[in-house]
Amino acid sequence: MFQERIEKVRANMKADNMDAMLVTSTDAIYYLLGIEIHAGERMIVLSVLKDEIKLYINALFPLADMKIPVCYFNDVDDPVSLLSESLKSSKRIGVDKDWPSRFLLKLMKVKPDADYIDGSFTVDMARLIKAEDEKVLMRKASEVNDAVMGMMFNALSERVLTEIEAQEVIKESNASLGVNRLSFTPLICFGKGGAEPHHDSDETKLMPDQGIIVDIGGRREGYCSDMTRSFFYGTPSEEYIKVYNLVLAANLAAIKQVKPGVSFKSIDEAARAVIRDGGYGDYFTHRTGHGIGINVHEFPDVSAANEMICQAGMVFSIEPGIYLDGKFGVRIEDLVLVTEDGCEVLNAYPKELKVIPVHD
Amino acid sequence: MFQERIEKVRANMKADNMDAMLVTSTDAIYYLLGIEIHAGERMIVLSVLKDEIKLYINALFPLADMKIPVCYFNDVDDPVSLLSESLKSSKRIGVDKDWPSRFLLKLMKVKPDADYIDGSFTVDMARLIKAEDEKVLMRKASEVNDAVMGMMFNALSERVLTEIEAQEVIKESNASLGVNRLSFTPLICFGKGGAEPHHDSDETKLMPDQGIIVDIGGRREGYCSDMTRSFFYGTPSEEYIKVYNLVLAANLAAIKQVKPGVSFKSIDEAARAVIRDGGYGDYFTHRTGHGIGINVHEFPDVSAANEMICQAGMVFSIEPGIYLDGKFGVRIEDLVLVTEDGCEVLNAYPKELKVIPVHD
Repeated sequence: MFQERIEKVRANMKADNMDAMLVTSTDAIYYLLGIEIHAGERMIVLSVLKDEIKLYINALFPLADMKIPVCYFNDVDDPVSLLSESLKSSKRIGVDKDWPSRFLLKLMKVKPDADYIDGSFTVDMARLIKAEDEKVLMRKASEVNDAVMGMMFNALSERVLTEIEAQEVIKESNASLGVNRLSFTPLICFGKGGAEPHHDSDETKLMPDQGIIVDIGGRREGYCSDMTRSFFYGTPSEEYIKVYNLVLAANLAAIKQVKPGVSFKSIDEAARAVIRDGGYGDYFTHRTGHGIGINVHEFPDVSAANEMICQAGMVFSIEPGIYLDGKFGVRIEDLVLVTEDGCEVLNAYPKELKVIPVHD
Repeated sequence: MFQERIEKVRANMKADNMDAMLVTSTDAIYYLLGIEIHAGERMIVLSVLKDEIKLYINALFPLADMKIPVCYFNDVDDPVSLLSESLKSSKRIGVDKDWPSRFLLKLMKVKPDADYIDGSFTVDMARLIKAEDEKVLMRKASEVNDAVMGMMFNALSERVLTEIEAQEVIKESNASLGVNRLSFTPLICFGKGGAEPHHDSDETKLMPDQGIIVDIGGRREGYCSDMTRSFFYGTPSEEYIKVYNLVLAANLAAIKQVKPGVSFKSIDEAARAVIRDGGYGDYFTHRTGHGIGINVHEFPDVSAANEMICQAGMVFSIEPGIYLDGKFGVRIEDLVLVTEDGCEVLNAYPKELKVIPVHD
């Protein structure tokens, strides 16, 4: 258990008058206890009270050397009722944003005399500011991701791949660098598939004069990387080059905006303004970025709706994109770590347009 | 969209006086619409009212040829408020058991004048009884799983594998039979690892005189298989043979109990009594089985806590096990489909103890 992290959560609870916080997601529990448990549909709750902490877990997942009290239950027990016993004096209870509703509704019934709120900010705000050891791990994860991007570019330069074959290259390249877990299924999009921001890779073969989007990340020692590069196979049209350079300018403008004290919405706006001024505002259809750490998508959003202020130690993505339906998409994504007076870009893979000559 | 399935859900809603059901899980939406959408942390809701149906989804996931109204929103919109507008006249609202609490808590705030209940039974009860086309798919999925088990046994008979290498054999065998998705990460446990019901496969090599547990399943055309067999490598001890035969007898006793009209708890008890009478009652530490279909773990539990009655068309697992800490585990699992007068066992892979001679 990381006592320091628990105390940060408790400080956030106190500021919001919360008596209890029920931490339930795998990554949040990993952050606080350093162990990763996948309990599937079974309940798992780390109950953090002002002066107590207890893990509720099915006996199917026995834990060795736990330094905190553990309440084991079986499939025939009612774990929510067990949990409610320790919440007797709690009046304001925070629950994990991801806790399945079946547990929350049950708890509200068993213990109706309390206010329930989404309390994930108590953990998310702690996770938001990376400690020095976490920064080291995040830098290293992105360094590996840069190398994987290079291997992907080489493979695309050597032979014609399908999107699914390209995904395999990503998996194998990560494995060859000791990373056996991906942050997410690699998003590899050829041609007009790139115009769908969440295109599922399929048997599509790369054809001459198509754009390529490679959005990849690995999870190394508990921390995620996430980067996107767009390449072109063949001869890019004038429109492609224009769009590419606009996205790149947006990426650079947003990165330039990042420093302690600026709002997330202003970072989003820095990217969005470039694309809007270039005449493609309607085709940048998503937020500019997202927090990242143990999970690939963490609090906060880098979006027009987020008034939150940037602080040193935060890590998030900057990933503007333009998507032209039926034609192509371009996205360029880096991770940035906020420093005292600006930011450190965690990805070093080049961002100027790289063109792959058509194979013989 | 499957109108017949929607009407089943509405009938279940009506019986419980529900005005609305918010279906949110990927598999439940797949069941009702025939499309699989992974919206990640973004809200997705299929709102089923008495005489309306509408899908709320982020514009990042555009859908073609939808025959129902779709409300697209963006990252800066508040999707819960949009959703609440269509719920104005709803007083009793069912929510998906898996809906993340952040959405439910928000909805409760935006629309406090309603009762919220776990409404998943409206969909789960419909899914519970498989239609003829679903039965065909479930039979076929298990047929492939039988073949994969055979390939696994052959690989173990030919060479010494680590648990992780054995997992790879499972993936490759499935792929060679056209199944590119697994129901779950294969659980391969050698020796004392088999005593942990949810052991994570690792670099452990199979050693002479060890028990083996192979718990596997694939997802083929939307439907899951799930089967466990236990093998022995080398010369089994008397205790292993005794335990194996007890688990097999429990598996057979539970299967014999399955027919329309019996309770799930009586099926659990049929297996549990055999193991208890054999003196190992304390070592059968989990429920006897679980429903299965689009998802590998579906409603209902085959457990002592479930008074529900079996009906023709249900499919679930029968998987008693005995786990001797520090020694070995044995589990034997089949899927059964309830018929008019008993059940059809979907797995044909042999269940008598198979012993693999030690490799030279």
